[in-house]
Parts: sequence; C-alpha cells; structure tokens
Amino acid sequence: MNIASLDTPALIADLDVLERNINEMATHCRHIGIPLRVHSKTHKVPEIAKLQLAAGSQGITCQKLGEAEAMVDAGIDDILIPYNIVGKPKLKRLTSLSKRARITVALDSEETATGISQQASADGCVVPVVLELDTGGGRCGVGSPQDARCLAQQVMKMPGIDFQGVMLYPSNTRAKPFITETVALLTRDGIPVRIISGGGTGAEAASKELGCTETRSGSYVYEGMTRIGNSEMLAPERCVLRVLVTVVSTPTPERIIVDGGQKTFTSYPPTPYGHIIEYPDAKIYGMSVEHGHVDVSECSHRFRVGERISVIPLHQGMTSNLHDELIAVRGHNVEAIWQIAGRGQVK
Amino acid sequence: MNIASLDTPALIADLDVLERNINEMATHCRHIGIPLRVHSKTHKVPEIAKLQLAAGSQGITCQKLGEAEAMVDAGIDDILIPYNIVGKPKLKRLTSLSKRARITVALDSEETATGISQQASADGCVVPVVLELDTGGGRCGVGSPQDARCLAQQVMKMPGIDFQGVMLYPSNTRAKPFITETVALLTRDGIPVRIISGGGTGAEAASKELGCTETRSGSYVYEGMTRIGNSEMLAPERCVLRVLVTVVSTPTPERIIVDGGQKTFTSYPPTPYGHIIEYPDAKIYGMSVEHGHVDVSECSHRFRVGERISVIPLHQGMTSNLHDELIAVRGHNVEAIWQIAGRGQVK
Repeated sequence: MNIASLDTPALIADLDVLERNINEMATHCRHIGIPLRVHSKTHKVPEIAKLQLAAGSQGITCQKLGEAEAMVDAGIDDILIPYNIVGKPKLKRLTSLSKRARITVALDSEETATGISQQASADGCVVPVVLELDTGGGRCGVGSPQDARCLAQQVMKMPGIDFQGVMLYPSNTRAKPFITETVALLTRDGIPVRIISGGGTGAEAASKELGCTETRSGSYVYEGMTRIGNSEMLAPERCVLRVLVTVVSTPTPERIIVDGGQKTFTSYPPTPYGHIIEYPDAKIYGMSVEHGHVDVSECSHRFRVGERISVIPLHQGMTSNLHDELIAVRGHNVEAIWQIAGRGQVK
Repeated sequence: MNIASLDTPALIADLDVLERNINEMATHCRHIGIPLRVHSKTHKVPEIAKLQLAAGSQGITCQKLGEAEAMVDAGIDDILIPYNIVGKPKLKRLTSLSKRARITVALDSEETATGISQQASADGCVVPVVLELDTGGGRCGVGSPQDARCLAQQVMKMPGIDFQGVMLYPSNTRAKPFITETVALLTRDGIPVRIISGGGTGAEAASKELGCTETRSGSYVYEGMTRIGNSEMLAPERCVLRVLVTVVSTPTPERIIVDGGQKTFTSYPPTPYGHIIEYPDAKIYGMSVEHGHVDVSECSHRFRVGERISVIPLHQGMTSNLHDELIAVRGHNVEAIWQIAGRGQVK
C-alpha cells in the first residue's frame, strides 16, 4: 500500500530512521559498556520493543502495569516497572503477571513493600524489587543513603519479595556519592545490590560513571537527537514520527487549516507544535481541538484544499499516546500497521 | 459496585451533576427560545448524547466524521459535522454514513463542495450542507457575505448537495451585520436559508440575537459554570468529571505523588492542573508523564500511601479523550461504565 492512500490524520513511523536510531543507541551503549533496558513508554508498541530487544536491549521498562501487561501479551518476558504498585486490584494483576514473565518493580516506602509482600505471599510468588532513590528528580524515591538502608532492611525481612538493588532517576553524576554510599551501606549489611538501574536518554555515559548495571533510555527511539543536543532535535532526518494531515481550508492567502489539532498532537501549546517537512517555512501557530492553524505567509507555495503535508510532532510520546495505530513506512510504502498496544494503559 | 473497588486512575462522571447541567442548559435554551444541537466533542459518549437528546436537543454535533460514525453506531440519527470533509476515504465514509442517518456537513470552499458532490452523485445520495462563515474565529470559513454568496451560487449548481444554510463560529453579536447581509444576499438570489447554526457554550443568547436557528453548545455538559462565569468554573458542585487517583508515594512531608500525570490529565501545563475535592489546600504543582506532583505543605492532613483522592481536571474534553471508559457514579455507587466511543476518532 502506498502512503497516498492513507486517510488522515495518520501517525506514521519512518522505518529507516527508526532502525538507525535503535542501532545507534545499541552501539553507543555497547561502546560505553553499559547494558541497555529500553523504556517503552515513548512508543508503547510491542513490535518496536522487539526491534530494540533484537538490537541488544536486555529487557524493557514500562512506566505502568497496564503497559507491561500489553508487552507480556505480545511475548516480552523481562520488564522493569519503575513505579510504586499500590492497591489491591493492581497487586493482584502484578502477581498474576509475575507468573507469566520476570517483572521487577520499584518501591520507595514500607507501605508499597508490604502490599507487594502480602499479595505475593498469598498468591505463592516472589516479586523482584528495587528501591527507588531520588537523585534529584524531586518526584518519588527515598532521599538519602540512610533512608535507603532503613527501607532495604525492612524489605529484606518481608516474604514474597526478592530484593535486587536500586533504581535512580535522573542519572546525574552529582549523585555519585549518594549511590556509592547506599551501595556501601547495603553491602556492609550483607544486602546484595545486583541491580543499579539508571535512566534517561542522553545519560548513558553518566549511568556508566555512576556504576549502574543498566540504563533505561526511551525517547531516543523517536527523537533521535535529544542525546546529542536539543538544538538539533527537530532535524527531520533523525525524527521517526510524522503526522500526515490534509489541508481542509485555505481561507486567506496567509492561513491554511489542516485536519489535526490538539486531539491529534496533544494540547501542550508552545510553538512550533511541529515541523512541516515539505514546507519548513510554513509555521503551525495555533491549534484548536481538531484544527491545526498554519501561517503560510513566508511560504512561496500556494496550498490547495486536499493537499497533504507531513508534520513532525514536537511531543512524540504524548502524540503517540493519542493514536491507536502507528503506520510503519519505508519511503512511500506502508510496510506494517502496528497497534499502539500500551496506549491509554494508565492503570 | 462501590467506587472504592475501582482501580485508579479512573475517570468518573457524577450523574447528579451531569443531569443537572443537561437539564439547566435545555431549560435555558427553551427559555431563550433557541433550539439546542449539543456538541458531543466534549464527552464523546453516546449515552450522554442520548441524555441530551432526551432533554430536548434537536440533534447533535460531532467535530469529526469518526465521532459521527461512533454516534450513528449507537443509534443517533441527526448529526451536524461542522468540518470540511476532504479526501476520497472520508468522502466514501460520509456517503455511506448518510445512508444510515441525516448527516449535515459544513464546507467553506469549492474544492470541498466538489468532492462531496462527486462522491454523493457516484453513490446515489444527497448530502445536506451548510456554508461555514468566519465570524471572528480566524479558523475556517468564508470571510464576507459576498464570498458566501459566491460559494452558495456554485454549490447550488452541484448535484448531490442539498444546500441548507450557514454555520458560524463564534456566535458574537458583532457578527450581526455579516449574518444579516449574507441571508439577505442569498434570499435575494432565491437560495433558501433554512439553517443558521450558531455555537459555543455561553453564546446561546447571542445566537438567538443573531437569528440562529440552533445553538451548538458542548462544554457546558461537564464544566457547568463556563456559561455563567469562568471564575466559578472549578466550583466542585457544578463539575461532572473527576479523576480518582491513588497516592503512590509520600517522599517528603511537603510532597505527595499520585498515579495520574500527563497521560491521564493531558499535557497542558498551567497550574492548577486540577482541583482536589477532598483537600482543596493540596495543590497539583507539576506533572510528569505518569506522576502527579502535589504540594501538601498547606494541608493539615497527613497523607498515606494507598489513599485515594478525587481531582476535577482542568481540561475536561482533553482529559476525556485520553480514557477509554467513563465511570458513571451516583454518590459512591457505580451505576454504569460507559465507553468513550468517540475517543481517538480524529479521522
């Protein structure tokens, strides 16, 4: 099938660029000497996760349990969920999923640990866990080596939990004393630290320097350039995603309207919203819910209703999350239509 | 089922408030004397559209063809799509849908009209259309009564199209000369203007004053207060939607983390993101993709991991569009689980 026969708006992935991004990150991590555990939250597509695994990733990361379920359903069997799993319905799902694949979860409190321990014990399974350390993210995580030690000691006493180590975010080299001291305290207590999981595209070398045993990198898969420099982020030849849209109105010589707005691209407002590949001088200056407003005053091309243009979205992960399907193309040829199986799996 | 047994994050609609909002708008429009054609883009839920129809709406409005298909599938038979339908795949879907329900579409160009005319002729049907007028929205629409007349004359000659009148956005009383002159020009040409469709919650009286034959009001269904005053928009007793979230981390005395972030609430960043019903002094100050960051420093309550709170989202339409299901509750009782059938129907 040719791309020209697609209805719009259509979310498209350029396979050549996707494969290049995946292979370059795999090579980069091998070169540095740090194992990769790709974060699938950016794409949520099992087929892409499998390409990443085939390129050498030692497993994947899913931000929510629902995403992990979608990935296990697709045959993926080693997943880290760097998220506190809380509440009876999720704990039951966790133990159920743990019987189908190796699911490691993060936790940062005695309450979360107790919940996992009780459910795992009741369901006759053992859940591998890592302690989340707050190395500057200001989000979840214990805030000091002493707190980490205290929580690790509690966790070590709980049945149904297999303590594996720590997980941190972000992987900033300033966190080195925190990590070193935590590992030293735990080791001194006889608590083995098998996993030190670092994270973030662009932080692979920092994770290595911190002594991490793996790096969770995600956004590289689409954005390509973020690990090298934000200024080049929109370089079209490194960006995988594009939204194919149709010009539906040309009300004035300066303005055209396309059939993708906030519900196609997400609602985060700062311009440029996205980059129009065919006409870089045309600027998306606004979006209503279902319309994209484009200023074409700097553009010599005269647009016609029915014409199609390709927009690289600014917010690749959020844009993906609005679509059910990702159309994988090579050149103008549609090679596959992939379900974004993890979309909407916020539970 | 009790609300306490729901997994989180869960999108919930308070049925008492929903019914109140629906009935008050219906009464308001009857009192003013303008027929209502509710816009379903805010909720995208057929069951809610049916409640609105039962309260007196004379039909519904869908922003995209895919939404209209979902509504026709659910049995709704009179829909206005105020959007230029462009391109072969959509035109075929339009004529197909036109055989199942009365589907009126807007257009603002000869190209859009020609496409509809050709497809309708080929498929042996007649599509009712209205001309879109730009009465200040700066989006689609013809910009003057003369342009409207010129396009109407072209459209009148086309087979397969049943010219019905005009559609405008926004319904501002400043547009009165535009509307009056357009109607006068068309009438003088012998072109009957049966529909003058105005739009926007809060603009019902203005639509009446402009001579509109119907008002497309949508956001009132959830926000409740927008038609009276934005300052009261977050008054909890008028807001239908809430997102039930769980506290998953209490890393510091000042900060808690809940299990809903940008992929639950949408990515538009300005605080307050949402209003926490149980603890109005707790402020959502940030969101990462799957975490909500809440400042509880002004709050005397001491939060525990596992506790649940109810957040009224700021962006009700965008938030709905991220979820597959809407849980309809009365008090603490779950009365129904509705599919958000129009979600993701951007095509």
